[in-house]
Amino acid sequence: MAIRPLHDRVLIQRVKEEEKTKGGIIIPDTAKEKPVEGKVIAVGSGKILEDGSVRKLEVKPGDRVLFGKYSGQEIKVDGQEMVILREDDIVGIVE
Amino acid sequence: MAIRPLHDRVLIQRVKEEEKTKGGIIIPDTAKEKPVEGKVIAVGSGKILEDGSVRKLEVKPGDRVLFGKYSGQEIKVDGQEMVILREDDIVGIVE
Amino acid sequence: MAIRPLHDRVLIQRVKEEEKTKGGIIIPDTAKEKPVEGKVIAVGSGKILEDGSVRKLEVKPGDRVLFGKYSGQEIKVDGQEMVILREDDIVGIVE
Amino acid sequence: MAIRPLHDRVLIQRVKEEEKTKGGIIIPDTAKEKPVEGKVIAVGSGKILEDGSVRKLEVKPGDRVLFGKYSGQEIKVDGQEMVILREDDIVGIVE
Amino acid sequence: MAIRPLHDRVLIQRVKEEEKTKGGIIIPDTAKEKPVEGKVIAVGSGKILEDGSVRKLEVKPGDRVLFGKYSGQEIKVDGQEMVILREDDIVGIVE
Amino acid sequence: MAIRPLHDRVLIQRVKEEEKTKGGIIIPDTAKEKPVEGKVIAVGSGKILEDGSVRKLEVKPGDRVLFGKYSGQEIKVDGQEMVILREDDIVGIVE
Amino acid sequence: MAIRPLHDRVLIQRVKEEEKTKGGIIIPDTAKEKPVEGKVIAVGSGKILEDGSVRKLEVKPGDRVLFGKYSGQEIKVDGQEMVILREDDIVGIVE
Repeated sequence: MAIRPLHDRVLIQRVKEEEKTKGGIIIPDTAKEKPVEGKVIAVGSGKILEDGSVRKLEVKPGDRVLFGKYSGQEIKVDGQEMVILREDDIVGIVE
Repeated sequence: MAIRPLHDRVLIQRVKEEEKTKGGIIIPDTAKEKPVEGKVIAVGSGKILEDGSVRKLEVKPGDRVLFGKYSGQEIKVDGQEMVILREDDIVGIVE
Repeated sequence: MAIRPLHDRVLIQRVKEEEKTKGGIIIPDTAKEKPVEGKVIAVGSGKILEDGSVRKLEVKPGDRVLFGKYSGQEIKVDGQEMVILREDDIVGIVE
Repeated sequence: MAIRPLHDRVLIQRVKEEEKTKGGIIIPDTAKEKPVEGKVIAVGSGKILEDGSVRKLEVKPGDRVLFGKYSGQEIKVDGQEMVILREDDIVGIVE
Repeated sequence: MAIRPLHDRVLIQRVKEEEKTKGGIIIPDTAKEKPVEGKVIAVGSGKILEDGSVRKLEVKPGDRVLFGKYSGQEIKVDGQEMVILREDDIVGIVE
Repeated sequence: MAIRPLHDRVLIQRVKEEEKTKGGIIIPDTAKEKPVEGKVIAVGSGKILEDGSVRKLEVKPGDRVLFGKYSGQEIKVDGQEMVILREDDIVGIVE
Repeated sequence: MAIRPLHDRVLIQRVKEEEKTKGGIIIPDTAKEKPVEGKVIAVGSGKILEDGSVRKLEVKPGDRVLFGKYSGQEIKVDGQEMVILREDDIVGIVE
């Protein structure tokens, strides 16, 4: 079963905590909102601009991305923890 | 009796909880807002853009969609539980 | 005595509760805002767009519409309970 | 002494309560904001649009209008109770 | 010493209470914000529109204007009480 | 060491209280926000407009300006008290 | 491991307090938000404008910048304290 995000939304699979430490990124434990890591599973058709045209998203399936911990909406698909959020809530791509 | 949503609004029939579990989507029980599943019954003529033109909606009647649990306005039509919301409150389409 | 709504406003006569039940729509009794039914009596000349042009409204006198219970401003005209609201507060047309 | 409202503002003389009842409009006594009646005394040169052009107002001196009770700013001119508000705060014209 | 307001701002000298009463305007004493009277001393070069062009202001030095009592910023220039505010905070011109 | 403000920001050196009194401007001591005086040290390349073009700022290095007391961000550069704020927070130029 | 910021975001490495003092900038200790210093490590592809075009950022890798202490999101990359924020949160470039 697949989910196609609408417009400028992106479906992301959270990366588990253990895997994240291996990747070299350690999230400091402060009061500030901290980005978490995830893998892009599916992307929407693009952002609808004010003149009605559509702009393709910059992220693509397979990208490792950082996004705000409290961004978007959580969902479980086939037992996997996922998040659906807007591309603008993604702060960066891990390369 | 039918209801035609106005502009960029969409009329959605909620999917009952049992059916949802069968479909493979399990909504985790956390404090965050979680999307629920529904079937599109009717869509408005489209979103009115700033220049006055109208942009057709991306969802169409029959689509299975995920939307914010607290989005839109509830209504019962001919005994069926329905929700009327804006297309932008739909986060994804189940395929 | 008649009232001509300004711009994108619409004058609506509330439909009495009894009549509404006959029409098949039952508004569930929850904490969420629920749309109520009414009949369009008069519409404004249209929405003024950012470039100064005017866009005709989609609803017309005689339409049965659903709108937010707490939308707009109440008024009594010749003993009739009316509501004046913006077309954007109307969620759908009953057909 | 005269006052010329600026841009999209309108100078309105409130209609006294007695006169209003004669005109057939009875404002129901609820918690919601209710429009009151008044007579347009003077109008501004028009609304300044985003491209710098000016759009003439739809109301004109002499119009009987309904407006939000708490809209705009009160002022007494030559002993008369007046209100200065933006045309967008006027909900309709009494014909 | 002179002050040149920036963009769409206007420098206004408050009119003293005594003088205001002579002019025929009596500000009613209610809880609502009430406009006060002043004389335009200097105006900015104009409002910067979204496309970068500049639109000349409608008020000019010497105009008697009404403005919100709590609008703008107070300043004393050469012993005179002045206010610097945006033209949009001026509700009307006294003629 | 120099600081180049970004976009529509302006670097301002506060004028000391003594100097200000000599200049003839006395800031009344009320509860309202009052503008303070400063000297423009450096300006950004200009405001980025919605179409991506850049509009040069109206103030230039050397200008004596009035700005909101609580506007912008304080910083000390080479022992001097400075403020970095957006040009729109400047209310006027002292001439 | 590298992080590529998305759109108009910038990846910045905080400058340690000791180094900052040497650079001549002393941040006064007041209640106001104060900018802190950092080095730009990576920049996004640019800000997406309303017409869908992309505007290159003004800062570039290597720039020493000042930014709001509480702006953006903190992250540790390969043991280094970093911040990801939007270019608009950068107030100036240290030259």
